[in-house]
Amino acid sequence: MSLDHQAALKKMKERVDRELIDYFNTTTSLVSDPVCKMVYQHIKDFTMNGGKRLRPILVVLGHDLFAPSDERVYRAAISIELTQTYLLIHDDIMDQSEVRRGKPSLHVAVRNEISRITQDAKRISENIAIIAGDLADSYAHQALLTCGLPPQETMDANLELSRIIEMTGYGQLIDINSSYDEDFSQSDLMRLHLLKTAKYTIEGPLKMGALLSGTKQNIKPLSYYGTLLGTAFQLHDDILGLFGEEEKTGKSIKSDVNEGKKTLLMLKAIELAPEKDSIFIRDCLKSGNVSDNDFKRVQDIVMNSGSYDYSRKLMTKMIEKSREYLGQVNGDGSIKEFLSWLASYIIERSN
Amino acid sequence: MSLDHQAALKKMKERVDRELIDYFNTTTSLVSDPVCKMVYQHIKDFTMNGGKRLRPILVVLGHDLFAPSDERVYRAAISIELTQTYLLIHDDIMDQSEVRRGKPSLHVAVRNEISRITQDAKRISENIAIIAGDLADSYAHQALLTCGLPPQETMDANLELSRIIEMTGYGQLIDINSSYDEDFSQSDLMRLHLLKTAKYTIEGPLKMGALLSGTKQNIKPLSYYGTLLGTAFQLHDDILGLFGEEEKTGKSIKSDVNEGKKTLLMLKAIELAPEKDSIFIRDCLKSGNVSDNDFKRVQDIVMNSGSYDYSRKLMTKMIEKSREYLGQVNGDGSIKEFLSWLASYIIERSN
Repeated sequence: MSLDHQAALKKMKERVDRELIDYFNTTTSLVSDPVCKMVYQHIKDFTMNGGKRLRPILVVLGHDLFAPSDERVYRAAISIELTQTYLLIHDDIMDQSEVRRGKPSLHVAVRNEISRITQDAKRISENIAIIAGDLADSYAHQALLTCGLPPQETMDANLELSRIIEMTGYGQLIDINSSYDEDFSQSDLMRLHLLKTAKYTIEGPLKMGALLSGTKQNIKPLSYYGTLLGTAFQLHDDILGLFGEEEKTGKSIKSDVNEGKKTLLMLKAIELAPEKDSIFIRDCLKSGNVSDNDFKRVQDIVMNSGSYDYSRKLMTKMIEKSREYLGQVNGDGSIKEFLSWLASYIIERSN
Repeated sequence: MSLDHQAALKKMKERVDRELIDYFNTTTSLVSDPVCKMVYQHIKDFTMNGGKRLRPILVVLGHDLFAPSDERVYRAAISIELTQTYLLIHDDIMDQSEVRRGKPSLHVAVRNEISRITQDAKRISENIAIIAGDLADSYAHQALLTCGLPPQETMDANLELSRIIEMTGYGQLIDINSSYDEDFSQSDLMRLHLLKTAKYTIEGPLKMGALLSGTKQNIKPLSYYGTLLGTAFQLHDDILGLFGEEEKTGKSIKSDVNEGKKTLLMLKAIELAPEKDSIFIRDCLKSGNVSDNDFKRVQDIVMNSGSYDYSRKLMTKMIEKSREYLGQVNGDGSIKEFLSWLASYIIERSN
């Protein structure tokens, strides 16, 4: 059964990829200046280089819950993937990340290209990347607005897309703030997860899809499903960040700690562990570069304090609760079954 | 007559300002976290601090050409002013500008606020400003999408807004490229003006308004009017930049030369002047800091080579031609008269 679902997921991903390629190929001709062509190509390469395409797939599923499949939904759905391109390009500038999905981040790719013609390549390539992100955002809106579905439905979905971008922005601000806010609390963190992950990755895309279907059904239970699953998704991500396998997660096991990320695992360990251990964790989060031994001790404290169990249990409870809400959704049975499977898939994945 | 028009312009500006304030006041409540509130307030202050509101006024005029006045158009129209906020915030990061409209630019205002709580205030405030720009963009789309006009018209206008943002992005890329492109030509420059000024400042807003009216009239002549007027607007801007009064333009008379701006005045002077003078101008554009004497010589070369006359004549011809196209617009007579007056106003302004 789960094999079938996995095959279906793969098929949808390929369909999304085709739609993205098609979008880029049909809009290319608008760009004639060499510098614009260069940046356009980088945006295209960046977008086509991997990604699970979970968000556009959720747009399609959100639609198909309430209406028969419609090829035009794929054109609308890639808007959220182009939004992802937009936000990741800006993120990489902000974090000064050199690598994204195993390749140079966009500003680095541009820098490599222009470094032979200008001395100020670092600054200029970051400026070009700010514009590249803004361009990807305009492509996102255009893909959605030209999808060919009825105007009211398209407009509703576009409003939701704009709100997703807004909420994600607030989430990013809270995230930046968290690193120098000594009083950053668990409720702040949950709000951060809600805005930056749950809305953006799961609930928003599902809602966009539901709005595109034009359904008159109550879509609140679907939103609750998405919010709970999205938060669980983030908790699982944090667990992978601290206990996952580097080869599968694709990032250094120590990076979350070195970045000073105040995950629920950390906050709860600080709360539950003996004072000496709490102080040790706080110090590690500030150090920027923990040793292997210190990292091992952080893992042990998270385990022994009960913080790991707390996150796991909360995650499991959220998944259960999300399924309850899914049960209340008045939509297509096979899609509901697929979404129920997806809930397990998302928190059992190892990357 | 022109006094009446000026009074009408002032009244429309005030109406736009009220709509902006109203928009910010009714959306404020969505933001609860202190860091989000802080950034929201900065976006609001930045937006409310001045600006001629020419773009939203053109949206309203574009609409009123083809349909009776409608208060909802103002809500739609502020989307282009919020877009201006978005682009200027990002521009100021890119240019490392400390000042905008006589006040600190947004990243500087944020930096001033956070410098007591973090050592890394410069980087963090620029990151926050990238997000602030992205937020302003999402506000722009939301203002338009919630204006209450019919879905098809609203959607068409939003597609045009997205295209304006896209074209402006290409214009910015060409602009960045121009500073280190030795072969930057007059036709490159005209394309830059078309994308970065004519589309963004005049033609795009007018077209957005026309689309909001839902007119079935041919709007191409209106687009031509806007494109020509917009390009003339930029030529006039460049003349003010080199020969205007600092107190009125609000910027150093030498700044265009110091920034190495390849305006038509410069390109044409390089083409027409004796070789010695051409080389002198090229050198000044690269120097980054011209002396008063050298600046005076640049002005003289532009005058004596015939470059100044060339720009003035081209501008005048474009204005004439724009009026011809305006005559072909099948729209309200008094609005057409207003737009005809506006064409003179725009190229006679001293700031």
